Amino acid sequence: MRENMNEKCAVVGIFGHKEASKLAYFSLHSLQHRGQEAAGISSSDGEKLHTIKDRGLVMSVFNEDKLATLSGSSAIGHTRYSTAGNDSILDAQPVFARYDLGEMAIVHNGNLTNADEVRARLIKRGAIFQTFMDTENLIHLIAKSEQDKLLDRIIDAVKKIEGAFSLVFLSRTKMFAMRDRFGFRPLSLGRLANGGYIVASETCAFDLVGATFVRDVEPGELLIFEEGKAPQSVKIFEPTPKHCIFEYVYFARPDSSVFGQSVYECRKEMGKELAKIRPVEADLVIPVPDGGVPAAIGYAQESGIPYEMGIMRNHYIGRTFIEPTQEMRDLKVKMKLSPMTDIIKGKRVVVIDDSIVRGTTSRRIIRMLKEAGAKEVHMRVSSPPTTDPCFYGVDTPSKENLIAANMGVQEICDFIEADSLAYLDEASLLRSVNATQDIYCTACFTGKYIV
Amino acid sequence: MRENMNEKCAVVGIFGHKEASKLAYFSLHSLQHRGQEAAGISSSDGEKLHTIKDRGLVMSVFNEDKLATLSGSSAIGHTRYSTAGNDSILDAQPVFARYDLGEMAIVHNGNLTNADEVRARLIKRGAIFQTFMDTENLIHLIAKSEQDKLLDRIIDAVKKIEGAFSLVFLSRTKMFAMRDRFGFRPLSLGRLANGGYIVASETCAFDLVGATFVRDVEPGELLIFEEGKAPQSVKIFEPTPKHCIFEYVYFARPDSSVFGQSVYECRKEMGKELAKIRPVEADLVIPVPDGGVPAAIGYAQESGIPYEMGIMRNHYIGRTFIEPTQEMRDLKVKMKLSPMTDIIKGKRVVVIDDSIVRGTTSRRIIRMLKEAGAKEVHMRVSSPPTTDPCFYGVDTPSKENLIAANMGVQEICDFIEADSLAYLDEASLLRSVNATQDIYCTACFTGKYIV
Amino acid sequence: MRENMNEKCAVVGIFGHKEASKLAYFSLHSLQHRGQEAAGISSSDGEKLHTIKDRGLVMSVFNEDKLATLSGSSAIGHTRYSTAGNDSILDAQPVFARYDLGEMAIVHNGNLTNADEVRARLIKRGAIFQTFMDTENLIHLIAKSEQDKLLDRIIDAVKKIEGAFSLVFLSRTKMFAMRDRFGFRPLSLGRLANGGYIVASETCAFDLVGATFVRDVEPGELLIFEEGKAPQSVKIFEPTPKHCIFEYVYFARPDSSVFGQSVYECRKEMGKELAKIRPVEADLVIPVPDGGVPAAIGYAQESGIPYEMGIMRNHYIGRTFIEPTQEMRDLKVKMKLSPMTDIIKGKRVVVIDDSIVRGTTSRRIIRMLKEAGAKEVHMRVSSPPTTDPCFYGVDTPSKENLIAANMGVQEICDFIEADSLAYLDEASLLRSVNATQDIYCTACFTGKYIV
Amino acid sequence: MRENMNEKCAVVGIFGHKEASKLAYFSLHSLQHRGQEAAGISSSDGEKLHTIKDRGLVMSVFNEDKLATLSGSSAIGHTRYSTAGNDSILDAQPVFARYDLGEMAIVHNGNLTNADEVRARLIKRGAIFQTFMDTENLIHLIAKSEQDKLLDRIIDAVKKIEGAFSLVFLSRTKMFAMRDRFGFRPLSLGRLANGGYIVASETCAFDLVGATFVRDVEPGELLIFEEGKAPQSVKIFEPTPKHCIFEYVYFARPDSSVFGQSVYECRKEMGKELAKIRPVEADLVIPVPDGGVPAAIGYAQESGIPYEMGIMRNHYIGRTFIEPTQEMRDLKVKMKLSPMTDIIKGKRVVVIDDSIVRGTTSRRIIRMLKEAGAKEVHMRVSSPPTTDPCFYGVDTPSKENLIAANMGVQEICDFIEADSLAYLDEASLLRSVNATQDIYCTACFTGKYIV
Repeated sequence: MRENMNEKCAVVGIFGHKEASKLAYFSLHSLQHRGQEAAGISSSDGEKLHTIKDRGLVMSVFNEDKLATLSGSSAIGHTRYSTAGNDSILDAQPVFARYDLGEMAIVHNGNLTNADEVRARLIKRGAIFQTFMDTENLIHLIAKSEQDKLLDRIIDAVKKIEGAFSLVFLSRTKMFAMRDRFGFRPLSLGRLANGGYIVASETCAFDLVGATFVRDVEPGELLIFEEGKAPQSVKIFEPTPKHCIFEYVYFARPDSSVFGQSVYECRKEMGKELAKIRPVEADLVIPVPDGGVPAAIGYAQESGIPYEMGIMRNHYIGRTFIEPTQEMRDLKVKMKLSPMTDIIKGKRVVVIDDSIVRGTTSRRIIRMLKEAGAKEVHMRVSSPPTTDPCFYGVDTPSKENLIAANMGVQEICDFIEADSLAYLDEASLLRSVNATQDIYCTACFTGKYIV
Repeated sequence: MRENMNEKCAVVGIFGHKEASKLAYFSLHSLQHRGQEAAGISSSDGEKLHTIKDRGLVMSVFNEDKLATLSGSSAIGHTRYSTAGNDSILDAQPVFARYDLGEMAIVHNGNLTNADEVRARLIKRGAIFQTFMDTENLIHLIAKSEQDKLLDRIIDAVKKIEGAFSLVFLSRTKMFAMRDRFGFRPLSLGRLANGGYIVASETCAFDLVGATFVRDVEPGELLIFEEGKAPQSVKIFEPTPKHCIFEYVYFARPDSSVFGQSVYECRKEMGKELAKIRPVEADLVIPVPDGGVPAAIGYAQESGIPYEMGIMRNHYIGRTFIEPTQEMRDLKVKMKLSPMTDIIKGKRVVVIDDSIVRGTTSRRIIRMLKEAGAKEVHMRVSSPPTTDPCFYGVDTPSKENLIAANMGVQEICDFIEADSLAYLDEASLLRSVNATQDIYCTACFTGKYIV
Repeated sequence: MRENMNEKCAVVGIFGHKEASKLAYFSLHSLQHRGQEAAGISSSDGEKLHTIKDRGLVMSVFNEDKLATLSGSSAIGHTRYSTAGNDSILDAQPVFARYDLGEMAIVHNGNLTNADEVRARLIKRGAIFQTFMDTENLIHLIAKSEQDKLLDRIIDAVKKIEGAFSLVFLSRTKMFAMRDRFGFRPLSLGRLANGGYIVASETCAFDLVGATFVRDVEPGELLIFEEGKAPQSVKIFEPTPKHCIFEYVYFARPDSSVFGQSVYECRKEMGKELAKIRPVEADLVIPVPDGGVPAAIGYAQESGIPYEMGIMRNHYIGRTFIEPTQEMRDLKVKMKLSPMTDIIKGKRVVVIDDSIVRGTTSRRIIRMLKEAGAKEVHMRVSSPPTTDPCFYGVDTPSKENLIAANMGVQEICDFIEADSLAYLDEASLLRSVNATQDIYCTACFTGKYIV
Repeated sequence: MRENMNEKCAVVGIFGHKEASKLAYFSLHSLQHRGQEAAGISSSDGEKLHTIKDRGLVMSVFNEDKLATLSGSSAIGHTRYSTAGNDSILDAQPVFARYDLGEMAIVHNGNLTNADEVRARLIKRGAIFQTFMDTENLIHLIAKSEQDKLLDRIIDAVKKIEGAFSLVFLSRTKMFAMRDRFGFRPLSLGRLANGGYIVASETCAFDLVGATFVRDVEPGELLIFEEGKAPQSVKIFEPTPKHCIFEYVYFARPDSSVFGQSVYECRKEMGKELAKIRPVEADLVIPVPDGGVPAAIGYAQESGIPYEMGIMRNHYIGRTFIEPTQEMRDLKVKMKLSPMTDIIKGKRVVVIDDSIVRGTTSRRIIRMLKEAGAKEVHMRVSSPPTTDPCFYGVDTPSKENLIAANMGVQEICDFIEADSLAYLDEASLLRSVNATQDIYCTACFTGKYIV
């Protein structure tokens, strides 16, 4: 249970379905875990683009009337994560623009590492920026490109940006989907039952709308969707895959396949690896719900130690503004999680979590388990120590707030008050995800940034 | 995952804490799973009772200002389940009354089986009823009793009512807690860290407020809380325990102890029993989340078949009013649950649920698993067929809507499109909960009503 | 502009129209000025009564769906004033009760002066009170009456109560409307276009629903509405009229007729009388909007001094929680009212208000006019000094907060910083409303209470 | 009472007050009548600009916390009118931009008549437009200007635009206020009590915040506000005044002074002129509230016919979604306005309104008066027939919906079912506002557009 590292957004595109915006709506709902602050959809009816975006969850932003105004057979959508202190509705996506070729809308998952330079260059040439999203760079680059055709302009534009980008563009008659050369963030192609197409950040969006998985959009690939044609593929960049391994560790929904593999199975495998390299004598394996569940199942299967739901997650969470009384310790965690006292009492417990970011939540959980009577609490983490912030589309605390950037494993163990603490190492993590080649970005564990 | 049988309410009482209403608030939050329609708290400052109740979840009904008006060192609280078609705020509890001895407030979990007769008798004697709650009977009976003291009146009153009642009464200076002679619904006593007391429907309310479990209020017992004294016990009825076994099967939170045992452990034991009497050759055991989780873990442990989280629960549920498109089948279930396709594909799956009420949800789940590629789906239910409605405080469909009241097991199996279906039998269920004596009500499986 | 004395409620009854609850809804909207805290409607479909009531304005409490559940051809409704510190939804009306003769609902405008004694007596006999409304007495009295028929019971009940009551009762098949013997509060009978009937606190409710005024319900009269019959009249009490003269002064809407006369014309006449007995040399007559408008027109017509809208009322009021800056004086009044500086500057102004309750608002207005450049400000009040609280259904401050109970006219003049101050005297006020007999209650000016 | 022609917005600027955004907030509240859809404020703390804007009334968009984030000693604000079918939050103001000189924010009241050409030119040069506001042109023009200093760029920019513009610009350290050469829309300068400055669309904003009127910003004038200096004036255009005469007729608040004169007095004068040129024998003069009040007072004073508030305005309006019953005619008007039946019955009535746009509301009002018993209804309009749409910042219906563009006076009279109808003529209107020179735009009456 971490509140400290978060995927910044999800994107979706629907092409060739007369209820495109409705499919985008349901797809975005499936991707809600990738961003809860704002949601938006742009559709094209062939003549004009229509956009609605607002603060809130997908289900609260849209209703039947609003979806009805988003007419047309193509639509793109976006959900956005709330970055602290900025709840500006203006920074919601899609980003819409009128420009010399007409109208366009863009949704973006990722982070442009050269956004400041590009923006400075554009501003010098007279551009104005009305939002604080790096995505705004893209519409400027497209509008200012000397090329005649939108396709060429998009190519022009994406060649000027660096960093992580899984993008979907919508024009009046076409849709484009694109991933950066590293394929940092996922983006998959699916086929709708009626013959139309869907692209989405995760495959879990496909099931709800009755689509079937076709393949991932390739790193460096641009897909062009045009009426009456199969999607055309253009290789813009030579692919040099550096998939975000944290999608496997924590971000993606376990029922999704990303980068070609089942997220759930990868997580379970991490748990098995962890059991192999970091065994411990114990009576129970319990997950920190919900993130730690698959790895805990794997750990239990590998170690033979019984798996139990030793910590319950309360579904009626929500924010309370009532101050606790003096006797109520660790209220914040306890309102979300509670221990199965009768299961835990007197037992040696292995607790599996996917990662430790600041360490404070882990400490609260371990204290809670000890108060519930656990004899020993052994923390096992199904990823390596998180030592470095991400610049490729993930909201991470700064380095001074990452406990593993500032303490050794034993120190962390003491801090969180565990009887023992062990992490999965990088090699084992890579093994868990069947990495035969160097195709994953592990910068948050190693500090080795690609760009 | 059932939407068809629901606990009707939760009660809580706090005595001897200067922030009594705040403790009641947090306790009610822990008991939110027992009722989401309305919430209320009455407190006493020694001079006057104060009551706030409204529609909505505990967290939305109360805020700092409102809790501040609920002053005093004793408080009782209630959450209420939404019975279809009646969202009247007037039927929220606590029920408050001014009467000849002053002021009182009552909260009630249960159902009075002779409410109509009692009400008719009271009405004949000139009483008026302003709500549709059977609890209103009680304040009339107390007000009309010939006894001089409140204690005697409460005794008088509860002797005239039949059925299920776990009650907490609040007067200006005292608090009373009472269970019917059968102890249908749970009610436990806890001790606050400061020396005060708490009674609550489930022990999970104790943890959050820093209270420790003392014991259950006994069937037929009345507890009297008075300042400066230990709770006094009066045996009003000879106890003839008939605890609601469905609390173990489904209602109670797994981290609670009810009727003296861990809910989680009982559920796991049901899974083990089920594995013993209803084995099946399969590759995976998966729960219908969250209700089926403990039994599935037990089933897996007993059978040796690997446990997997084969179905994911989406936490961003909520009601959508958007009509699905033609291609989107079983939307309602799919928005809540989704299959781990990669885990399930080609596998023989045992699905564990706690009960089957109407059968339609089970059918949708099984279809979903088959669409995800399951080779075989074997449904195992950790309780006997639900054949009869409950009259002791549970909201059940009428008999014609209970599938097991109208079909045999094979017919149900066909209806839900499972490859096999088996239930736990009554004897095994009783064994799972260590029932050495006849102390459980199993009327919903047997039709043998006590009263 | 006074925020200190307020009518407590409005009542309405519809009989014999297939959309009775809808007509009640629109009628209540017309009566919204008599109470903004809560609204409610009960209807009867001949078999059962249906009730919806909630906090809020009429338009926000009801919607199409809710009105649809209030089926049947008779309905009664209520709006309620917000008494400070008590926003309990439980104290909304109609009051509903099941009792030995079936079901009934009551709405009440007024105040029972012997409510405490009656309640004490009822409680002694075993009754319980669940709300803080004196109206609850009535349902108890009816339920406990020894009479067999509802009509006789109502007669029984109203004979036991004292004070001000304009009541409408609804049973499954009948409706009853009743006024106390003094006729304190208004209640009028109208005829619907379809032949059905309406009773309402003010005739302004008739216009919107297309009804025509028939006559007032007489003091002491009970009207019985029964299907297929003309309303039957029963004289319960010998009428001794004591109509609330403040209805003319301030409460009633100017487009209503109450107690047989146009409210607007009475107010204008008060202005004329005031001009006769309290003349002043001045350049302009201006009203404090909206209450002072008719009297100011009358004053201007009589005195020949030009009438001007010298103070504007801002329609975008609402409560702000923003603290003003140091330079912003009298913010509260200025957000509602603003001076026509160019009209007022250098002028001798007569300001007409309907009454002065605490004096603080008057002072703010006068200061505002002086700041706007008025050379002289002469306050003229179209009613006598308000010296005594009302016990007949009006929310008044306690005596120590009524400025005229504690200061003489000259002192008040000094306090409000006017150049002169004069009130209408009682005799002139009575002349303004054509009082040839002693049929008005003037207790708030004289302290001569009837009961 | 017209719902058909509306001012599009209000602007305000505060310079040199440590609570600048709070003053902007209160000022905007005073200007709420000029736009109710959206509200926004940008402030500068000397380093950075801060912007909050959202749908809703001023009071609901801002709260204490939000105002606190709008720190700094200068602030500009805007309220916006709801144009049908477009409730996009993106089209709220201030418009904010980062550009080569830093950050700026702009608010605009008016309408640029060459917006399409300018935008097309800008788009050709690579600009992108993210909203549908013509104001967006300005930030582009400023950003793309070749000048080095912001002042010169603003001058550059405003020279490229045509139409109506009352603008306030905010940079990190300066504020600029500007009116087009015609001075179509009002903009006044005031002095804050602490020595700072305010500019606002109407002077009614000054009173609430304790500012005093200094003078109007001149047509074609640019005012520069810089710390520690008096506002500097730059004449950008030779002034050729064409003030919107409809500000006097209807838009401005009657307690404002615009274009150097009291709005209230101008309106009263229109009523007097109307009485002179369009007399009628009648018993009463009544206004359509609230717009017709001052002119009706003037008409009454001039004609000697008594003034009465013959129509009441209901302050509890609001939108109902309940369908009226068959008997309820003209519900929409009747929920807002109701007749003083006793005043009107049997009388010959002169009804004064400020204008007639579509004619349907006038017809409903006249019918209502006739139903209330008026013997004759003579409609008098205090402005000439509205025959032409406005292109200078007013939301008018298209020509085919302007009744006077399609019917002669007698036809309109028949349509609205009046006994007689007369308008003020242009010459008299100009006389009412003391127009000794040709300084007013009367295009909506004459079709003579300036640009």
